[in-house]
Amino acid sequence: MPYPDEAEGFQVDSPETFTTFHKRFFKLKPFGDYDVDIKIEACGICGSDVHTISGGWGEQKFPLCVGHEIVGRAIRVGPKVTLVKEGQRVGVGAQSYSCGECKQCKNDNETYCPVLMIDTYGAEWPETGIVSQGGYSSHVRTHEHWVFPIPDALDTNLVAPMLCAGLTAYSPLVRNGAGPGKKVGIVGLGGIGHFGVMFAKALGAEVWAISRSRAKEADARKLGADGYIATAEEGWEKPHQFSFDLIINCANSSEGFDLAKYLSMMDVHGRWISVGLPEEEGQVIKAQHLISNGVLIGASHLGSRKEMLAMLQLAADKGLKSWVEELQIGEEGLKEAMLRMKKGDVRYRFTLTGYEKVFGQ
Amino acid sequence: MPYPDEAEGFQVDSPETFTTFHKRFFKLKPFGDYDVDIKIEACGICGSDVHTISGGWGEQKFPLCVGHEIVGRAIRVGPKVTLVKEGQRVGVGAQSYSCGECKQCKNDNETYCPVLMIDTYGAEWPETGIVSQGGYSSHVRTHEHWVFPIPDALDTNLVAPMLCAGLTAYSPLVRNGAGPGKKVGIVGLGGIGHFGVMFAKALGAEVWAISRSRAKEADARKLGADGYIATAEEGWEKPHQFSFDLIINCANSSEGFDLAKYLSMMDVHGRWISVGLPEEEGQVIKAQHLISNGVLIGASHLGSRKEMLAMLQLAADKGLKSWVEELQIGEEGLKEAMLRMKKGDVRYRFTLTGYEKVFGQ
Repeated sequence: MPYPDEAEGFQVDSPETFTTFHKRFFKLKPFGDYDVDIKIEACGICGSDVHTISGGWGEQKFPLCVGHEIVGRAIRVGPKVTLVKEGQRVGVGAQSYSCGECKQCKNDNETYCPVLMIDTYGAEWPETGIVSQGGYSSHVRTHEHWVFPIPDALDTNLVAPMLCAGLTAYSPLVRNGAGPGKKVGIVGLGGIGHFGVMFAKALGAEVWAISRSRAKEADARKLGADGYIATAEEGWEKPHQFSFDLIINCANSSEGFDLAKYLSMMDVHGRWISVGLPEEEGQVIKAQHLISNGVLIGASHLGSRKEMLAMLQLAADKGLKSWVEELQIGEEGLKEAMLRMKKGDVRYRFTLTGYEKVFGQ
Repeated sequence: MPYPDEAEGFQVDSPETFTTFHKRFFKLKPFGDYDVDIKIEACGICGSDVHTISGGWGEQKFPLCVGHEIVGRAIRVGPKVTLVKEGQRVGVGAQSYSCGECKQCKNDNETYCPVLMIDTYGAEWPETGIVSQGGYSSHVRTHEHWVFPIPDALDTNLVAPMLCAGLTAYSPLVRNGAGPGKKVGIVGLGGIGHFGVMFAKALGAEVWAISRSRAKEADARKLGADGYIATAEEGWEKPHQFSFDLIINCANSSEGFDLAKYLSMMDVHGRWISVGLPEEEGQVIKAQHLISNGVLIGASHLGSRKEMLAMLQLAADKGLKSWVEELQIGEEGLKEAMLRMKKGDVRYRFTLTGYEKVFGQ
């Protein structure tokens, strides 16, 4: 009983076996008036996928098919859908539903909805008991608000990682004023960070990549960085005291992180915004660290539909390209991806491709 | 050799003897072209005074005369002074000098100047070796930028505590948008907090006082609070989820503080701004606590000259009055003040008065 009642995808059964994927059928949620069915053509691999199935973020609903940087074709649209046309190439990111009625949802803060948050995978649909399954699969069924038409200029395999990692970097940049005349730092040159550099530059800011060693300096400059800071070097923070308007912290660990040094580089009321969710305990913050420059520390979660569409258009207009390594979807490709993600061995993002070989036309 | 070369004031000699004040002469800095000499008529007692002389903020330059909520009469103005007239009633707050040349100084962020910060007491004047001495004394000598004319409508003894505590509350309110349509919380109903409630209300915001018990509820409402939250009550944070635009944290201890509960009350991208400098170690902050509403955590240090003048005018226009207990300056009054400040036994601020009895006309 496959599509339209079921999709087929690669599931993991427990954190202990997170590199072992099983190809199975699973149920889709009941089709709603505003839903769009998407036949998946590519999916990026996100750090969240690994955190989730390897147990770093606590208990999850197994068996689980992850993946939330989905690009595919809209093959069926509900009778009330107006935002997406059948046949259109579209994307889906990390969130797939919110209440749509609250103050946050009505103010382009739907990714902060306090009423109902359905992640693209691992969330239970109310009243059905069905747990959402992600994009390492043949199809997803998604409310139109969370389905994003992809501009023609963007390549399917390259745009996929923008649906989560890209937006995660883009939203805090625009919400915190990255643009001409602003000095912006990007800490951590991984999947999200590489988009941070690329988008901050595209938005017109002066961009500094901040990484431990100089190993990624050449890459950072190719991505658009105007400057580079290596935090393994003595006194790295000194030349930048009171100068950054905004730093996006994309590091996905806080171990050995001397936050006070980073904060000392911020201009008065500059903003330090974290987008990673490290698995460790938090950091100790003293008012003393914040008071010399009145810096603001925050965090950001994904971005709105409006920001997603603006980001895709910016990428299309400026010819921005994700740095992607393509992997054939399947038991082997996924195992390799998980092992390499754990080691941080990817520059800078994997995209799963070859869906037709595995799931058919 | 008293004034104009020296002033006379009450000094403490060590943290171990912080309740024992010695009346002594001490040298004033050399008189500069932009300096104003002020004969002091009243001085508020600030939590900083106690932290400083009792050792809570680390090593200090003893012997030291504290006090930085000074009101008095300008009795001599330098040849280049344009902001203050001789004979005028003026105030001095917690800071008395900055470089005046840097980006911060030129942008109304002089209290964040990274080049030179001279506090009203305990700071060494460059090239002189003279340590600045505060307002538990007969006179201060201060650069005109840091001398603030007091509107006639304000009573000397009531306006004094506004010079530090008042401004400390006022600046983060205006910098973070407190006004009509905003829901503002004030945590900690002490000296700063009572100004927080008063000014937030005067600025047009909906104001909630947040305190441990209900002991201060009646006071808070008299000060202008629209609502009151007692954090000793089970579930206190629940009715306020996602609702505060701004909370000013005036608590001067972080012990037993469940920050995550406070943050859960913030609207998306709401701001949690601390103005206290607790003596304890900092708080552990996890990205998880920040990400559900994208809250920003910051700190604020005093406020600009412009903000000081605006605050004084607001107080004059709206008839705002500090809640002050007056104490006769002298060994006894100061000892009593220090002991009661340590216990938090003051509603809500002490002002030292009777300067003429002690220092003469």
